[in-house]
Amino acid sequence: MAFDGRSNGKACIIGAGCSGFTMAKRLKDYGVAYDCFEMSDNIGGNWYYRNPNGLSSCYQSLHIDTSKWRLAFEDYPVPEDWPDFPHHAQLLQYFHDYVDHFGLRETITFNTAVEKAERRSDGDWNVTLSTGETRTYQWLFVANGHHWDARTPEYPGEFNGYQVHSHYYRDPFEPYDFRGKRVMVVGGGNSAMDISSELSQRPISEKLFISMRRGVWVLPKYMNGQPADKAVLPSWMPSKLGRKLARASIKKRVGNMEDYGLPKPDHEPLDGHPSVSGEFLTRVGCGDITPKGGIEKLDGDGVIFKDGSREKIDAIVWATGYNVSFPFFDDERLKPVENRFPLFKRMVRPGMDNLFFLGLAQPLPTLVNFAEQQSKLCAAKIAGEYEFPAEDQMKETIKEDEQFHLGHFYDAPRHTMQVDFNAYVKDLMKEIERGRKRAKATA
Amino acid sequence: MAFDGRSNGKACIIGAGCSGFTMAKRLKDYGVAYDCFEMSDNIGGNWYYRNPNGLSSCYQSLHIDTSKWRLAFEDYPVPEDWPDFPHHAQLLQYFHDYVDHFGLRETITFNTAVEKAERRSDGDWNVTLSTGETRTYQWLFVANGHHWDARTPEYPGEFNGYQVHSHYYRDPFEPYDFRGKRVMVVGGGNSAMDISSELSQRPISEKLFISMRRGVWVLPKYMNGQPADKAVLPSWMPSKLGRKLARASIKKRVGNMEDYGLPKPDHEPLDGHPSVSGEFLTRVGCGDITPKGGIEKLDGDGVIFKDGSREKIDAIVWATGYNVSFPFFDDERLKPVENRFPLFKRMVRPGMDNLFFLGLAQPLPTLVNFAEQQSKLCAAKIAGEYEFPAEDQMKETIKEDEQFHLGHFYDAPRHTMQVDFNAYVKDLMKEIERGRKRAKATA
Repeated sequence: MAFDGRSNGKACIIGAGCSGFTMAKRLKDYGVAYDCFEMSDNIGGNWYYRNPNGLSSCYQSLHIDTSKWRLAFEDYPVPEDWPDFPHHAQLLQYFHDYVDHFGLRETITFNTAVEKAERRSDGDWNVTLSTGETRTYQWLFVANGHHWDARTPEYPGEFNGYQVHSHYYRDPFEPYDFRGKRVMVVGGGNSAMDISSELSQRPISEKLFISMRRGVWVLPKYMNGQPADKAVLPSWMPSKLGRKLARASIKKRVGNMEDYGLPKPDHEPLDGHPSVSGEFLTRVGCGDITPKGGIEKLDGDGVIFKDGSREKIDAIVWATGYNVSFPFFDDERLKPVENRFPLFKRMVRPGMDNLFFLGLAQPLPTLVNFAEQQSKLCAAKIAGEYEFPAEDQMKETIKEDEQFHLGHFYDAPRHTMQVDFNAYVKDLMKEIERGRKRAKATA
Repeated sequence: MAFDGRSNGKACIIGAGCSGFTMAKRLKDYGVAYDCFEMSDNIGGNWYYRNPNGLSSCYQSLHIDTSKWRLAFEDYPVPEDWPDFPHHAQLLQYFHDYVDHFGLRETITFNTAVEKAERRSDGDWNVTLSTGETRTYQWLFVANGHHWDARTPEYPGEFNGYQVHSHYYRDPFEPYDFRGKRVMVVGGGNSAMDISSELSQRPISEKLFISMRRGVWVLPKYMNGQPADKAVLPSWMPSKLGRKLARASIKKRVGNMEDYGLPKPDHEPLDGHPSVSGEFLTRVGCGDITPKGGIEKLDGDGVIFKDGSREKIDAIVWATGYNVSFPFFDDERLKPVENRFPLFKRMVRPGMDNLFFLGLAQPLPTLVNFAEQQSKLCAAKIAGEYEFPAEDQMKETIKEDEQFHLGHFYDAPRHTMQVDFNAYVKDLMKEIERGRKRAKATA
């Protein structure tokens, strides 16, 4: 059942993960009619472990690497008894509690996928459902997530052992028993850190290699006894100075990656999306994890690396990230190229100002309550309280924002939508104010 | 086959762990005849994983928490390619290499236990072997280890689930499969840290409690990117000042234990034997490990704690330490009481100056190469180059040394033989010099 609003046309939300249902909450608060379609049988998206829609990347040991202090929704506190870094099951329960508390559940249509979304000549959206039905909406919200379309690199040669992308990895025993095996994890992101740490334990794999094409900085979950993200610098601090201070602090705290036996990063801390693990560096330093460089070639029952070395390998876990995909769009303008998809305030494609992408970012420190902030601009727009700048100005702003948020990162498909959460929100609130003035001026 | 020396009587070494075989090396260097009896089929003692003598406490995931920089023998370097914190299998291989390099293996009698050692009226030792044979020695070296006689506390009530002392714990699957179980680990030492971290993982236990009667300080393996024991203060620094500086550094680095949800220690860092883990605090902070206080009562399928709470428990791991035992001595004077066993320089009981206890200490940072240093005094004594002080003076020195090494520790059976490795060795070398002068004076 949908939520019946009062005016301003009807909205469609694709997906009932944390981006989708916080948007729903905002629309409900504003009295905007909406449908929210969720292809699965329940809410939670990526945080719904063993999600029957097959799109969750949760593994059993996954804890969010954002502390509870940073991921709480604005108007719904996290449970008192939570640990600093909650388990995925706790986070999902929090989502359920939020959705029930605000009466959102009955506004979500479950087991119903959006199969096609087409912009009509009048600007409205024709949305075709897995039921076969097509409905028309004035506003379209895309909250389908961006951690489900597994990206696996191509290498020459063939590998005869077991292979799995981290998206499908659940635990050390199922669907594949890694015990006693020679395992290679590929990648340098959070999944690679977690899965290599887990499988490297002596009672699990016989030997664990991690293949990284380049060095990464691995940050701890705790700094000086406090969750590290509590130490994120205040948003009023100029980002250059802030990064400089944070870099010095990180380097002092974690030391040199090469001292642990890892490749030396070719960038400074925070000039790449940091990987977070409370365990990985110690496991490398203990020899449980053996670092290797990039892969040259797959080779039957082993792998040949760029440095010419060969290792016998029984199983590979590709923790190599995700593609950004919108399978319901046919419009070429709405297809990301190499994960690049420039958007005004990471939400709006200039010229399509009734289409909003939610949570389509890699915010530091967290994505959980990010769309909750984004939804403020969207709702203001629908309510007629906000107006976008001119199309040219939007394009100009996109460039400026990318320079601000991404300029210091090295160029890679994993660095196309990084934003600093605090700085983003501070700017977003200013942008909403600017838009209010524009709306009044044109009224 | 024994080593045939030239003079000064014959020595017997009980045990061929790292204390026993480094003593053997020293005796060989000095040309002292000895037998070394090892009840197992090979060397390594505690570091011989699945030692068929049943006395090794190694679990499969065990890494020594001393860095390779600190545990190397004086005259035999550790392998170049070692990680910072070697695995037990690497340490054992190093022991084998040492023993072979110095030709010690053929001087050790394997599969032969010492069943009884009695001091004769002339001061020599009658040693009865598991073969039935009794031999007489002028010198006796006890290197039978002190991490094998499992200490399990008594509590009222009965527990119906699975119980194991950490001494018998090997891995999460054997001899008991901890997967899906509600597990309680009891203790606050290194084994408790390691085993609770290992079993707490979400793909292993369903729920993991750790019961600690009092708070402990948990130190990381790395401080500021370097193995933490590299930062141990130089031995010339007065110990009070040194401890003060180290305390401040530790508190800044790890923060407050209670912020992780652990009991607040009732002592300052380094006023108790520290527990070391690169993983435990993060697992507590992530909620994988649930801290509980002391046990009030075992209760069938659960445990009642001092605070009145009850938890359903399927399995208990008692990581509650070890008794110091010498099963081959009947002499009441040679039986430790509550692990208390005062010795001159932690080696010699006043009045029995041809009996040496080796490695009978909890040296910080390590026990591996500790007896190697102690053996210098022993060999000097046998060679007639060293003489003990008078018995009264020895007793006085024991008290002074205990005050120095133990005075700042809180009183407990785990704090009866802690020594600061660097300070101990510095003092030992001075003592050998003093003994040389005494030997010359009496010559």
